[in-house]
Amino acid sequence: MNQPSAPSQRTRVRRSANYAAYDQASVHAIVDAAYICHIAFQDAHGAHCIPTACWREGDHLYIHGSNGSRMVKQLLEQDSCVTITHLDGLVLARSAFNHTMNYRSVMIYGRFEIVEGEAKRSTMDVFMERLVPGRQHETRRGNDKEFAATTVLRIALNEAACKTRSGGPNDDEEDMGIQAWVGELPFKQVPAAPVPAADCPVAAPDYVRRWGGEAG
Amino acid sequence: MNQPSAPSQRTRVRRSANYAAYDQASVHAIVDAAYICHIAFQDAHGAHCIPTACWREGDHLYIHGSNGSRMVKQLLEQDSCVTITHLDGLVLARSAFNHTMNYRSVMIYGRFEIVEGEAKRSTMDVFMERLVPGRQHETRRGNDKEFAATTVLRIALNEAACKTRSGGPNDDEEDMGIQAWVGELPFKQVPAAPVPAADCPVAAPDYVRRWGGEAG
Repeated sequence: MNQPSAPSQRTRVRRSANYAAYDQASVHAIVDAAYICHIAFQDAHGAHCIPTACWREGDHLYIHGSNGSRMVKQLLEQDSCVTITHLDGLVLARSAFNHTMNYRSVMIYGRFEIVEGEAKRSTMDVFMERLVPGRQHETRRGNDKEFAATTVLRIALNEAACKTRSGGPNDDEEDMGIQAWVGELPFKQVPAAPVPAADCPVAAPDYVRRWGGEAG
Repeated sequence: MNQPSAPSQRTRVRRSANYAAYDQASVHAIVDAAYICHIAFQDAHGAHCIPTACWREGDHLYIHGSNGSRMVKQLLEQDSCVTITHLDGLVLARSAFNHTMNYRSVMIYGRFEIVEGEAKRSTMDVFMERLVPGRQHETRRGNDKEFAATTVLRIALNEAACKTRSGGPNDDEEDMGIQAWVGELPFKQVPAAPVPAADCPVAAPDYVRRWGGEAG
């Protein structure tokens, strides 16, 4: 039997990978790529799915909301499910049913707990640094009144499952003769040109100039 | 008192808009911009938040899944909440607590119902056309076995609330002297260069070439 030649760019198999992961590194990577999450919780009216900003500090996912919001109250009283999803692309196959999507997702189960005192203040700094690295000393930090009106919650990342898919399509053997383009149509979430406020008092700092590649 | 001069590009106020909407046009626009949604439902173990592909046809949102999946079973037995969120950017203010995000979101409440027969087949065509306009006649349409293994569900869009925020920051009067860059750091979700499968049998058609601006 002939020896196959070394794989070229065209013959190298792009194996599709569709897998679950439970290790903390995988969980952290998906969480760290997110600005928002979706939280499912239930109350007397049934289930709700609320999008909210989030950030990781250590082994916990943090969110914040106004005191007395329906969500805050429920999240402290029962378990909830927090999902983060990054859509990476469309996967085009030879058959309709084998079309799919590439994505990275994590589902976190558990009970949120309230964060108070110095930990509450310091984690809001962590949040600002994650949102806009380098900015936090330029703006006014929260005062007592603002902190008093805000609830910060966190959930442990220990009961979390990642599910991801990457790579090209998986087609059925009987479809391999179909003459259609097959492969991936990827997405990227990219920064676009910064928009200074009408009354912006200063020129754009580095972290703004680097956003979207244009000066603000 | 002096008459103000006509607004220039720099003085034109970019009013922030933070509003709720319930009209079908607003709901449809947010739904139509999405490939996936997050669905909150409850079972004996509590609440779950599942990401899944979705598409609109008329006044309903459609999803599909394997027969017998936990989600499909629960969605038919009780009300659920479907949320679609598009993150449009970060909003940088003079104070930490006035930082926020721009987004478009819709929350849809109701009960999913099963879609069967010819409507089931035709809506899967609608889904393909939405995913990759122009492709559907190039691939093998679903056969009886594939349709038999798949459940298609739909939920009416009549009980839906949109929430969006756009524009620049809203700062407090007392912070107006702070010398920090303020404005929006927008995001865009953009197509990236198509990746043909290793065994892709044909050259890239128009709808692939236009994706990400590069030939496949």
